[in-house]
Amino acid sequence: MAENWVLTTTAQTPTNIAVIKYWGKRDETLILPVNSSISVTLDPTHLCTTTTVAVSPAFQQDRMWLNGKEISLSGGRYQNCLREIRSRAGDVQDKQKGIKIEKKDWEKLHVHIASYNNFPTAAGLASSAAGFACLVFALAKLMNVKEDLSKLSAIARQGSGSACRSLFGGFVKWIMGKEEDGSDSHAVQLVDEKHWNDLVIIIAVVSSRQKETSSTTGMRESVETSLLLKHRAEEIVPKRIVQMEEAIKNWDFASFAQLTCADSNQFHAVCLDTSPPIFYMNDTSHRIISCVEKWNRTEGSPQVAYTFDAGPNAVLIARDRKTAMQLLQRLLFHFPPNPDTDLNSYVIGDKSILKEAGIERMKDVQALLPPPEVKDNVQAQKYPGDVSYFICTKPGKGPVLLSDESLALIDPKTGLPK
Amino acid sequence: MAENWVLTTTAQTPTNIAVIKYWGKRDETLILPVNSSISVTLDPTHLCTTTTVAVSPAFQQDRMWLNGKEISLSGGRYQNCLREIRSRAGDVQDKQKGIKIEKKDWEKLHVHIASYNNFPTAAGLASSAAGFACLVFALAKLMNVKEDLSKLSAIARQGSGSACRSLFGGFVKWIMGKEEDGSDSHAVQLVDEKHWNDLVIIIAVVSSRQKETSSTTGMRESVETSLLLKHRAEEIVPKRIVQMEEAIKNWDFASFAQLTCADSNQFHAVCLDTSPPIFYMNDTSHRIISCVEKWNRTEGSPQVAYTFDAGPNAVLIARDRKTAMQLLQRLLFHFPPNPDTDLNSYVIGDKSILKEAGIERMKDVQALLPPPEVKDNVQAQKYPGDVSYFICTKPGKGPVLLSDESLALIDPKTGLPK
Repeated sequence: MAENWVLTTTAQTPTNIAVIKYWGKRDETLILPVNSSISVTLDPTHLCTTTTVAVSPAFQQDRMWLNGKEISLSGGRYQNCLREIRSRAGDVQDKQKGIKIEKKDWEKLHVHIASYNNFPTAAGLASSAAGFACLVFALAKLMNVKEDLSKLSAIARQGSGSACRSLFGGFVKWIMGKEEDGSDSHAVQLVDEKHWNDLVIIIAVVSSRQKETSSTTGMRESVETSLLLKHRAEEIVPKRIVQMEEAIKNWDFASFAQLTCADSNQFHAVCLDTSPPIFYMNDTSHRIISCVEKWNRTEGSPQVAYTFDAGPNAVLIARDRKTAMQLLQRLLFHFPPNPDTDLNSYVIGDKSILKEAGIERMKDVQALLPPPEVKDNVQAQKYPGDVSYFICTKPGKGPVLLSDESLALIDPKTGLPK
Repeated sequence: MAENWVLTTTAQTPTNIAVIKYWGKRDETLILPVNSSISVTLDPTHLCTTTTVAVSPAFQQDRMWLNGKEISLSGGRYQNCLREIRSRAGDVQDKQKGIKIEKKDWEKLHVHIASYNNFPTAAGLASSAAGFACLVFALAKLMNVKEDLSKLSAIARQGSGSACRSLFGGFVKWIMGKEEDGSDSHAVQLVDEKHWNDLVIIIAVVSSRQKETSSTTGMRESVETSLLLKHRAEEIVPKRIVQMEEAIKNWDFASFAQLTCADSNQFHAVCLDTSPPIFYMNDTSHRIISCVEKWNRTEGSPQVAYTFDAGPNAVLIARDRKTAMQLLQRLLFHFPPNPDTDLNSYVIGDKSILKEAGIERMKDVQALLPPPEVKDNVQAQKYPGDVSYFICTKPGKGPVLLSDESLALIDPKTGLPK
């Protein structure tokens, strides 16, 4: 076996947003949650992580680069994922390249990992979920791990809890499990991305002057101090999981929206019930909620669901394209860009919705009229600059392998990021 | 009996702020709460309602003026209070004026009521609590009602729930009661205002661009939709009531502050868990909390407790005068007035704290250094104009009669507001 070969595998994995929230661990090390959760996978075209994993006998140690910058792999979360995948590695043969790796060799071989997010890492868009899912998925392919996606999800879970839900497309349930070793705490797909393909998702990336509590710290403090969390996890969420599964199965948007909004609000209520209290939503988040609530009430049935993770960004799920178009008009009316902003960089992702809404230039934004449900000047207020940008997307597929080697992030000659 | 006499009584009643919150009614008409609550009465020197009630055989109907403007008495809440007090009226004799009213006469006699708040009615400072307490107290005195203050509190309760707690000074408990007719749902004094006389209270009146949900509407929607409210009312509050009574009795500021802050946050958590969600606190409220929490943590034990009612205003309770001085410095550092504001109208109430803090002019505010616990530029940010003004006050006494007739708000000659 020549010593200068480099074998690579490249994968792309989506991010996901919970519609029934995960908040609180019953085991900090294994990352076992206090309740099950349900998420929708976001279209990787607009939000995804691409990861190349490479192995070579020439590599001296495991190394990783995130968005081009080398980062440490010494943390327990990376170590857990690497250890769990390595222990399940199989024989690998690449006849074309004349490479043969036996199961037992993997313990000695080192890997290089290069990962890249097609969206700002710090924007609070679940980059760690996509990241750990992609790492585990790519390593499993490279090392010929035979486990199915659910088993892999239980490994990704040990990197970042919500990562387990990024192993599937469509709607995904993370079953909390009962076992102490976490072996039954894993994700399953409820329906694939084609099941409910009317849905359109618009993300408002909200400007924030505050430094937010990390979700790891926030969860720990909620578990330790919130008197409402236990009641939520034990009494409320189990019922909501059943109802949400039904709503998804039956394309029941009214129930889906009611549950999604209520569960997002309850998660933030638990954050507020934590000592010291945690505020992830800010005035802009509140205004987006008020705008959606008022519209939904006026229509008589929910048109749009909202959900917020551990930050001020709003994830808005519209029942169909027409509704999404109307939503975008409302959002751009209340939250226009700053005067110096290019509309093209203010609404990103699937820009066709913008076009269908008849908005092609900044003057079209300026010409937007107040929505009909807006009754007075207070309600018609505009907040330019309070949203950084919007991303238009939709439910999407799960992880895929990128077999085109030109898409690899690691140079097979040097074994280093391109 | 001459037909042209006018008999008046004038009373002054404090407002109060709950430290264990009242949120949710089990009976909307009788105003019976889903849990007991505890409040501190605020010094009437700075925040109070003055009410004059007058009776004359010449009056054609019951009439009321609030802050000089006539308002309707037709609402159920006023009618309930008037009916309950009238039914308990006794014989009244004023020998000096030669007036004699018999018990049975009260059913036919009409009253004029003039009420005045020494603070902005719309600022969200529990004006209805002080208002209904004062109305009931003054009417009871005028009509020679023999019931004790607790019995009167059960009548004031039917005007505005929290009004029952304004019948006493110091710390007050509203016992939720069990009876269906509400007869045992009334207030009792826990300790008078002299018991814990170190405490200093600073109220930050926060500027708001939003129109807030009224507490009546908010409570109803929480009772109907929040899945957390029942758990709070039945499981959490009863324990906190016991702990709070202990903390107050023993001057245990650490427990008092912990319970006060936690209960305020939990009340707002329940509001957020309501559908549609209710946001009373805004970014400024959150920043005040963060400032206090950081300081308390740095000191190793609570120096200041915060509590927020159905609005963005912060009520801050400092353990003693020295702490209050340091608190005011911190607040003025982060929330200075707008450049055109007069310091004299920006910090009102007991201004001696301002003087002790060495702040006499605007340039003293500008010269304030960041508090020692502030570590970076984000934490040291200033938000000029985000607070409208501060009120410095302390725990205070209950209702009093103003026997000096020159203080009456109704002219005994005309029977109309002066």
